[in-house]
Amino acid sequence: MAHKPHEECGLFGIYNKDGLQVAEETYLALYALQHRGQESAGIAVNDGGVITVHKDMGLVPDVFDEKTIKKLGSGQLAIGHVRYSPSDKLERANSQPLVMRYVKGTLAIGHNGSIVNIPELKKELEYGGAIFQTSCDAEIIAYIIARERLNAGSIEQALVNTMKKLKGAYSLVMMSPKKLIAARDPQGFRPLCIGKIGESYCFASETCALTSLGADYVRDVEPGEVVVVDENGLRSLKDHCGQKSSLCIFEFVYFARPDSVIDGQSVHFARQNAGRILAQEHPVEADLVMGVPDSGLDAALGYSYESGIPYGMGFVKNRYIGRTFIQETQKQRERSVSIKLGALGAAVKGKRVVLVDDSIVRGTTCANIVANLRAAGAKEVHMRISSPPFMHPCYFGTDISSREHLIACKMSIDEIRDHIGADSLGYLSIEGVHAIAKESNLSMCDACFTGRYPIEVPDEMPKDKYDQKIKA
Amino acid sequence: MAHKPHEECGLFGIYNKDGLQVAEETYLALYALQHRGQESAGIAVNDGGVITVHKDMGLVPDVFDEKTIKKLGSGQLAIGHVRYSPSDKLERANSQPLVMRYVKGTLAIGHNGSIVNIPELKKELEYGGAIFQTSCDAEIIAYIIARERLNAGSIEQALVNTMKKLKGAYSLVMMSPKKLIAARDPQGFRPLCIGKIGESYCFASETCALTSLGADYVRDVEPGEVVVVDENGLRSLKDHCGQKSSLCIFEFVYFARPDSVIDGQSVHFARQNAGRILAQEHPVEADLVMGVPDSGLDAALGYSYESGIPYGMGFVKNRYIGRTFIQETQKQRERSVSIKLGALGAAVKGKRVVLVDDSIVRGTTCANIVANLRAAGAKEVHMRISSPPFMHPCYFGTDISSREHLIACKMSIDEIRDHIGADSLGYLSIEGVHAIAKESNLSMCDACFTGRYPIEVPDEMPKDKYDQKIKA
Amino acid sequence: MAHKPHEECGLFGIYNKDGLQVAEETYLALYALQHRGQESAGIAVNDGGVITVHKDMGLVPDVFDEKTIKKLGSGQLAIGHVRYSPSDKLERANSQPLVMRYVKGTLAIGHNGSIVNIPELKKELEYGGAIFQTSCDAEIIAYIIARERLNAGSIEQALVNTMKKLKGAYSLVMMSPKKLIAARDPQGFRPLCIGKIGESYCFASETCALTSLGADYVRDVEPGEVVVVDENGLRSLKDHCGQKSSLCIFEFVYFARPDSVIDGQSVHFARQNAGRILAQEHPVEADLVMGVPDSGLDAALGYSYESGIPYGMGFVKNRYIGRTFIQETQKQRERSVSIKLGALGAAVKGKRVVLVDDSIVRGTTCANIVANLRAAGAKEVHMRISSPPFMHPCYFGTDISSREHLIACKMSIDEIRDHIGADSLGYLSIEGVHAIAKESNLSMCDACFTGRYPIEVPDEMPKDKYDQKIKA
Amino acid sequence: MAHKPHEECGLFGIYNKDGLQVAEETYLALYALQHRGQESAGIAVNDGGVITVHKDMGLVPDVFDEKTIKKLGSGQLAIGHVRYSPSDKLERANSQPLVMRYVKGTLAIGHNGSIVNIPELKKELEYGGAIFQTSCDAEIIAYIIARERLNAGSIEQALVNTMKKLKGAYSLVMMSPKKLIAARDPQGFRPLCIGKIGESYCFASETCALTSLGADYVRDVEPGEVVVVDENGLRSLKDHCGQKSSLCIFEFVYFARPDSVIDGQSVHFARQNAGRILAQEHPVEADLVMGVPDSGLDAALGYSYESGIPYGMGFVKNRYIGRTFIQETQKQRERSVSIKLGALGAAVKGKRVVLVDDSIVRGTTCANIVANLRAAGAKEVHMRISSPPFMHPCYFGTDISSREHLIACKMSIDEIRDHIGADSLGYLSIEGVHAIAKESNLSMCDACFTGRYPIEVPDEMPKDKYDQKIKA
Repeated sequence: MAHKPHEECGLFGIYNKDGLQVAEETYLALYALQHRGQESAGIAVNDGGVITVHKDMGLVPDVFDEKTIKKLGSGQLAIGHVRYSPSDKLERANSQPLVMRYVKGTLAIGHNGSIVNIPELKKELEYGGAIFQTSCDAEIIAYIIARERLNAGSIEQALVNTMKKLKGAYSLVMMSPKKLIAARDPQGFRPLCIGKIGESYCFASETCALTSLGADYVRDVEPGEVVVVDENGLRSLKDHCGQKSSLCIFEFVYFARPDSVIDGQSVHFARQNAGRILAQEHPVEADLVMGVPDSGLDAALGYSYESGIPYGMGFVKNRYIGRTFIQETQKQRERSVSIKLGALGAAVKGKRVVLVDDSIVRGTTCANIVANLRAAGAKEVHMRISSPPFMHPCYFGTDISSREHLIACKMSIDEIRDHIGADSLGYLSIEGVHAIAKESNLSMCDACFTGRYPIEVPDEMPKDKYDQKIKA
Repeated sequence: MAHKPHEECGLFGIYNKDGLQVAEETYLALYALQHRGQESAGIAVNDGGVITVHKDMGLVPDVFDEKTIKKLGSGQLAIGHVRYSPSDKLERANSQPLVMRYVKGTLAIGHNGSIVNIPELKKELEYGGAIFQTSCDAEIIAYIIARERLNAGSIEQALVNTMKKLKGAYSLVMMSPKKLIAARDPQGFRPLCIGKIGESYCFASETCALTSLGADYVRDVEPGEVVVVDENGLRSLKDHCGQKSSLCIFEFVYFARPDSVIDGQSVHFARQNAGRILAQEHPVEADLVMGVPDSGLDAALGYSYESGIPYGMGFVKNRYIGRTFIQETQKQRERSVSIKLGALGAAVKGKRVVLVDDSIVRGTTCANIVANLRAAGAKEVHMRISSPPFMHPCYFGTDISSREHLIACKMSIDEIRDHIGADSLGYLSIEGVHAIAKESNLSMCDACFTGRYPIEVPDEMPKDKYDQKIKA
Repeated sequence: MAHKPHEECGLFGIYNKDGLQVAEETYLALYALQHRGQESAGIAVNDGGVITVHKDMGLVPDVFDEKTIKKLGSGQLAIGHVRYSPSDKLERANSQPLVMRYVKGTLAIGHNGSIVNIPELKKELEYGGAIFQTSCDAEIIAYIIARERLNAGSIEQALVNTMKKLKGAYSLVMMSPKKLIAARDPQGFRPLCIGKIGESYCFASETCALTSLGADYVRDVEPGEVVVVDENGLRSLKDHCGQKSSLCIFEFVYFARPDSVIDGQSVHFARQNAGRILAQEHPVEADLVMGVPDSGLDAALGYSYESGIPYGMGFVKNRYIGRTFIQETQKQRERSVSIKLGALGAAVKGKRVVLVDDSIVRGTTCANIVANLRAAGAKEVHMRISSPPFMHPCYFGTDISSREHLIACKMSIDEIRDHIGADSLGYLSIEGVHAIAKESNLSMCDACFTGRYPIEVPDEMPKDKYDQKIKA
Repeated sequence: MAHKPHEECGLFGIYNKDGLQVAEETYLALYALQHRGQESAGIAVNDGGVITVHKDMGLVPDVFDEKTIKKLGSGQLAIGHVRYSPSDKLERANSQPLVMRYVKGTLAIGHNGSIVNIPELKKELEYGGAIFQTSCDAEIIAYIIARERLNAGSIEQALVNTMKKLKGAYSLVMMSPKKLIAARDPQGFRPLCIGKIGESYCFASETCALTSLGADYVRDVEPGEVVVVDENGLRSLKDHCGQKSSLCIFEFVYFARPDSVIDGQSVHFARQNAGRILAQEHPVEADLVMGVPDSGLDAALGYSYESGIPYGMGFVKNRYIGRTFIQETQKQRERSVSIKLGALGAAVKGKRVVLVDDSIVRGTTCANIVANLRAAGAKEVHMRISSPPFMHPCYFGTDISSREHLIACKMSIDEIRDHIGADSLGYLSIEGVHAIAKESNLSMCDACFTGRYPIEVPDEMPKDKYDQKIKA
């Protein structure tokens, strides 16, 4: 488990009516959604019913270049996907979009989320003679759609029927030869929005992708909604709408990009709000408030506004992405040096500093940062966390999964404070975190903090059952 | 279609009982089988039931290096695959071994050949809710095995049952968590042999792979036989044995490596025999017999032995493999120059030359070679082909498929002679080609020459039906 | 010319006395100095007099990996270099360190700066029979050192003698078989500092590299000083010290990393000071002060402090570095969209915004950013630049060189304001910029703003004379 | 030292008068000369005096692709170079053409050979203040030309003057802004020929490059001749002609491609002749004559012709080039298996075989091949070598350099026979080797066999003196 929790995927889809180059639009959108998944990227283009796909392990600009984008050709529809998964699942076979042929032709699917009743769905399929070539949920979903399609009049109806069987978190973007389809699970765990460029509709996990393309934001896909775009325009199937929602609150705390708006709520302001409430809940006398770049910056600003303590900069982040060797080298030196984050000694020397971050996972990095601040001369370091402590695994599409690595499962807050070497430590309260997204009218999932799962989850979620059997 | 017909795949599998590094052994075996497929390569290793696979587009030494071989780890079983497919099917998704999970665990499959009743099998599966992620026959075979396994007591029994449904050419190497399994279709279209290193059994498409590893040749898998290797050793299921065989005669003419022995027949000697018979059927007065490197060398030697005309060398082949840019550049210059094959002017100047090759596909390369010989000073060029003219598509695992490109479908032999610019042209007769493999006791398939297909094939073989729907 | 001026190089050198891995230390130091040069990187290691070098085009983590660092082996001394040069000079041959053999053995040299009397030095060498294989000044310097060494008792004395002939900007790090040598031109145009890890001395262009390694900052190399480190420790030759200095003021404005300290002055505070003075010189009524990431952030904070207007965030920078295709795609869309910099609509909507950046070169990017802010809903945009307008080319190691592209050479400030679409525009004054680095006791070069060159420069600097003759 | 001696370089140059794409022509020519050097490749193009160069480590098709060839642009002149050097000199800095600027402009140089008085030339240059950035002779030559050019009226005159100072082996191809120049040392150690495509002259190390381009062979450059091509056509400077020649006899034995003609002698026929004489000198009763592919094939044919013993094939060479990992794997298995060379068991079983190769260096590979033949069933193996034993290092541009590794320096012929496991062993005699190239009217260097060096060589040739000081 890395030092930050990870969102597991980002989605995009577009139905071109304006002479757009759909592959290039999708490429740029995925680049804007890169923070949602850094391990694989893929684009599938549909040109007159022929689907061409290119996908591989790596970042968007590594997987695609001018040549690969050109090779995808120009089509009417395209969908794209970026994926993160815990490192032991590093499989090229799992990269998406998943493209499949079935009785009614071809289908490309991108999935963001996690289905909790996979084991029983899988067992049922297996006893029907199914074979699995990946370990991603999208393959299971594809199977069920293929089977439902045998008795449904349309692909969207087959999807609606499929959704009856799926339990858990899923935002989906799909492409049949003639239709672009988006769907969001009834709880709306993961975000998904609708945009428009000229007359062309598109779907994206976050609005930052729309902004990046110059697209207008239309609205979010509703929890439970299926949205179909074809030559007749956009229409909606709401069979699964109207249930109590459970939007992942951590999208606001950390996952989403600050310039995105989810279900009406600016992510940047949600984080500022978190910082403000944090300042109310955990005030302290200090000279400077600073955020850990980049995850703590928005909340630090809010803390500064609310507390009146000046906002400052405490670190310089190396602008150049380090690859594995930098990362490994850094790991070995973690205690003593600061390769990616240079402490700004002049700014903190002799100062009482409030240091804000979004969360603490294992505590190692946090301890390292505090130590560097002290080495740079900070007199006091008061750690403030803009979310409650992680206590419970997430089953809905993030990698907050193992109690063993979550420091808050093993230590009291005082112990954590001592462990990270801070003078004081304050977490945002559960009530506080629920107050950060006032503009959103969805209710939120806070299970990682409270253990109150909005839908039933298996006693022991066998996340890795299949993965241990095959690696690629 | 390239200037030479292509075999579509090469297979290898090994069950280690001697502390062998199975990944490395498979790697070396695939390198020896590289001539059977140059577009993708893959190795799957089974370590205590956990299957790890690495596969990609490219030649064996491009796909694998020390690091990837190491990453495959050390296991008890491994299978490997090299693949060729017509260029419009260039799909990474189709690279093998195919690794799948199903109700009974995991299975890795490598396939060489072509199933002719794929359309009906596919349709049946689709109406059972199947989804297809590749366009290779191995996926269909895998599905049927998975379904048969639901009612069969063992994987090998499921395979025997599956074979009842398959029509066409297939050699298979499979790996379940505990078993290595090989099978050959009842007609024995494509070769497959059994080897042994110490106490460890292995399977390979050709014996040259065994020699390369220092393995002993045990015997060929019989047409229709299923051979199982597990901790108890090797055993055989012969339910499908005993039918009339149709071993591909072109394996002897061109596909196999000369140092291989197929069903008891040395490939080198089969080609020498072809040259000898050719000399009887098409004698000519000349000063020198030479083969087109490397495909015509063995037959040229036979022609020289039989005719008494001295064997000579007429060309120097560039030892360094050219990549695409060399190939493209060459294509544009094809008429006038000789980039890969340097004519040995000093040797041919003023000479009457018998030039031997295994086949003529489109005639372009052949015409170019004859022109280069003349430019180098040859007084006469007598072309001799060590097989009959291609007149019919092959449905059994090669790319001899399209009448449009086969020169013999469009021209008489005299017209071909004029087209390639030779003084005379002689093809081996049908009777002649059947006489080249005297040591083999299998009857042969000669459908590409005669149109007499040993099993029923569809009126119009829809080879590319699925491929036109998806590219990857 | 890019949208930002560029520093042309970064240097590092280390003399190991503590069992350090010099190649790895240099690698990490270059990573910290990456902002000073992104086009090539190189490390030379000296192990018992044998110098091994690895260098190539690309970023530090692209040029080096675990394997290349290992191949450099472990030695006692190492020097490293990162280089930027205008794109038409993209030559691998120019990557440094330059390693040469001469009458006294081997020498490795890294250079940061620009020698202004190159043409006459070159002519003199040419008439002495010299040949040039690169177009970098380091080669000329190496030649003169080699010649001076014939009559000097030591390499350091040869360097002192060489410095008499050199006019212009240079910081040097050199390595002979037994010595590590650093030097700075008498004007001290470019920075260079001394650090210490245990008993091991090192040199770096900026202190941020020292911090990154956990090294202590000892002091800056003085303008004109030559510092020698060998087995006897560190000693200094001050023959060229004591002249009036001309430290590049743009190091404080933009080039250096904010967490560096140059000649006693924190770069971060110099930029904050610039923002404070800017607020005094160009006050405005507004709701929010924001910096253009990352170049305007420090000054924006200073402007906010001084003006009392709240500091805010207006943009989200994509954390993932875009390669050429992203960059090209972006270029074609520059007017309408925002791929790398997402405007934070929620934050700026309806607000009067003060937008701070360090400089305007051509104006295109600035205009684009202002347009995006307005599109995001900003009511007013007041642009503030934390340095005076560029009016004159720089001859001392940056790429501020061509009047044709400098917007301030072609337009009045009012015209620039209209061109970029701002409601108001204020530049820091010349007096202001001289006041930002109060802690430094060096006098500064402001020639790019004033045209007052601290040393004589040629009427027409033939920067590109040689480059047009050869490209590699 | 590898299992075969290596030629150290291949050269090509072209002066376009016919609208040819000089970069592409040079690329194809280098591909044809690839056997003369596999470690680096380079092309320099001269377009109106501006020289652009691309060079790197690797084979021609690895170093160049469509993009790099395009980037070289279209010019009037181009030169190209392939290089081999012993593995401890693997330096990218040494790849050629060397492009330099000097007092009269730019010059690109490619060199094939080895200068024996380098140490004194280098010393003289060093005391004149020279610096060296490579360890290749071309740099020394370039320096001397640059100095001579100060007092000579033209570049070709400067070259003539330079040749007075050079001792040893060199074929040169050079390119000034307006001239293409070729030269060969007075002894003519290494080959160099003149070709013509339409009105465009070109130079190449071997005629096989001309054939590959469709160029006509004009004649060889004479030993000692300087040939200049400019807009006025071709002219010759013969100041150094007329001395006793010493063409390397091993070019005929092994280095050159069989389809080349050197100084009037077909290489293929020279090797056939070697085989014929070998059959006279070392007759034996046997069933089959076979060559080690590809180095022994031509001589085997000659042995067969002369002896009347049928020519056969004993090995199949893997057509697919193995990269390092194949090579390393093979090395570890050398005794027992045959990865690159499959013994043709069927052909040799029970036969008495004459096995012909061109030379034995260390004996390891030869022993391995003999062992494989026996394992494949050969009854007797009679080894025949188509050149005398190597007893002395070569100082003229090959890597036959170290007595330590030459088996013939350590063992008698009987001992070698036993070491390699042959039933008999016969080497071609000194007289025999001198008789193989009857058509050539040049006298030959046989120093590697006799120790009679045609020009004085240093007592202890300090080949590696400089190389041990720097690696890159």
